[in-house]
Amino acid sequence: MKSAVDLHAVIMAGGSGTRFWPLSRKRRPKQFLPIVSEKTMIEETYRRIRRIVPGRRVFTIADAPQSRSIRRLLPALPAANVLIEPRARNTAASLILATAHVHRRNPEAVVAVLASDHLILDEPLFLKKLEAAAEAAFRTEGLVTFGVQPTYPATGYGYIQFDQAGGRDFAGEPFYPVRAFREKPTREAAAAFLESGDYAWNSGMFLWRASVFARALERDSPAFFPFWQRTREALDKKSSKTLIRIFEEIPALSIDYALMEKAKGTLVCAGDFGWSDVGAWSALGEIWPRDDQGNARRGDVVAVESRGNIICNPGKLTALIGVENTVIVQAGDVLLVCRKDRDQDVKKVLDLLRGGGKTKHL
Amino acid sequence: MKSAVDLHAVIMAGGSGTRFWPLSRKRRPKQFLPIVSEKTMIEETYRRIRRIVPGRRVFTIADAPQSRSIRRLLPALPAANVLIEPRARNTAASLILATAHVHRRNPEAVVAVLASDHLILDEPLFLKKLEAAAEAAFRTEGLVTFGVQPTYPATGYGYIQFDQAGGRDFAGEPFYPVRAFREKPTREAAAAFLESGDYAWNSGMFLWRASVFARALERDSPAFFPFWQRTREALDKKSSKTLIRIFEEIPALSIDYALMEKAKGTLVCAGDFGWSDVGAWSALGEIWPRDDQGNARRGDVVAVESRGNIICNPGKLTALIGVENTVIVQAGDVLLVCRKDRDQDVKKVLDLLRGGGKTKHL
Repeated sequence: MKSAVDLHAVIMAGGSGTRFWPLSRKRRPKQFLPIVSEKTMIEETYRRIRRIVPGRRVFTIADAPQSRSIRRLLPALPAANVLIEPRARNTAASLILATAHVHRRNPEAVVAVLASDHLILDEPLFLKKLEAAAEAAFRTEGLVTFGVQPTYPATGYGYIQFDQAGGRDFAGEPFYPVRAFREKPTREAAAAFLESGDYAWNSGMFLWRASVFARALERDSPAFFPFWQRTREALDKKSSKTLIRIFEEIPALSIDYALMEKAKGTLVCAGDFGWSDVGAWSALGEIWPRDDQGNARRGDVVAVESRGNIICNPGKLTALIGVENTVIVQAGDVLLVCRKDRDQDVKKVLDLLRGGGKTKHL
Repeated sequence: MKSAVDLHAVIMAGGSGTRFWPLSRKRRPKQFLPIVSEKTMIEETYRRIRRIVPGRRVFTIADAPQSRSIRRLLPALPAANVLIEPRARNTAASLILATAHVHRRNPEAVVAVLASDHLILDEPLFLKKLEAAAEAAFRTEGLVTFGVQPTYPATGYGYIQFDQAGGRDFAGEPFYPVRAFREKPTREAAAAFLESGDYAWNSGMFLWRASVFARALERDSPAFFPFWQRTREALDKKSSKTLIRIFEEIPALSIDYALMEKAKGTLVCAGDFGWSDVGAWSALGEIWPRDDQGNARRGDVVAVESRGNIICNPGKLTALIGVENTVIVQAGDVLLVCRKDRDQDVKKVLDLLRGGGKTKHL
């Protein structure tokens, strides 16, 4: 039986992380790079969602230069669906704008908010769960989210505490009531979360009925609800000037902080479909094909007693001798060599470059 | 007072080592690379010796393709002085040919045999000692060599055992009688040599009067003396066909093995002028300028908690994070990353490339 849900997707494409430098640069963030496959991550995201959502119901949201990249990479996407943030104001503003677009089409439509730069290994399971989550969002008065079972006490993710007892099925999948959203924890808190068993990583993927989103803002986020109302009206009046003014005034907060942490009746579903946010170079050690010494690589590699490295040097030869657990990336005019457990410190290099006026490498 | 010695220099330029791969390649060995300074090592060698030897008395010896490189790099050198080995037959054959050329000009001329790819830090002292050694070669019936005070129990050099008691001065420098030449020792033997104090590293630089060289071959190297006679005659007859035949028949042995180990009356002088054969990448850690974390480098480097590295990536930026004691070389289509104490294993990479048919990278 075909679902009655009018499912729309919003692909968040506005990120500008630096963690894949020097492959990613200021004007070419991770979602526009072929990090995981031969295609860029946003192309993979679009291809995946298109299996269950027609193109006219897929939106992207990003700033103007990024939107030009999106138009080039996703030529099949209707131009009107490439939503442009008039100003960079974090995810609450972006999702108010995108949801308002969907609301204008159909207040009872369900919006699936997707990151443009995440990896999903088990695509059929993901799509099945996404349809179930859409059903949950359509049938209830709550927001819906995906939580990922933690495998280590990560301090780089937010956590979702949920109630294992009160599960409820939609389309054959169990959904649990959310007790609380927790921001990125300390190492100790993360260890306790892992131990307790009723915390999941916040995947950053959400679903909501447009009308439910509006009501949740009205009830739980009084600071943002007026911006929702003004945005919704601006769309009816097709006033881009008003939109600019709204984006100048709206607080630059994440949707987690602006709404998810405050909303009541939110449900969480297990995101056990091989999810990864591919947060930094070291993540590719588990994703790229590996040689028999555990070296994950792009490009030709000759390794003499070298193990556990991640090499990105496509089209060239990389020779390793006695090198272990090292990230090696050649991109354009920059070579990065970084101990695998220090890949978070790429930003220190960027700070040094900025300080030294070497901005052309950023 | 000007010396009476008619000093000639022979620059041995025929080597084809692989230890600076991937900067050095099959057709571009170390002597033709600007490893130590902005100029190639053979240009530095020529410039240095020209301070005391006029160009018409400087010879090079190498194979035909290498000789083309020499002509290009040393345009001031008379074409007739660029001697070509008809076949690659190791250093005994080359030095018989080169010394025969000098002998034809003047049997009492002194030949200084120089490597084309060694570093000498204290150039004035080197030239002073070289003139003293030329004096010793001119005044005695012996061969003369430079020995370098060992600083560690190296197994990669030959050793010269000498008699500290029997020193004799020439031009104010002491020369000691050589007791024996020892080939590359085991680690244990090298430690004993270092301990004893009467062993020096064989620098591979030699001096001899042409007529003394001929008599030493006649007396101590009966296998090679006939080749000397035939070579000397072939030069008088200008018969390149005969030279080719000689090079086809002559044993491919080093001059150390063919003559130095057997000759009597050899003298050694202390080569304490900052000599290095720049044997592999790690040697550059002591030679190239270093940043305050001890990273020796060519090219722009940004280092975050990274120490003791050697980076060759000219014209580009290299960023290091948590990397220590590693050699990093970007050259053409190849990137080498190698633990500093494993730089001798570059040949293992080349063996793997040869085995895999990837000969374009050699």
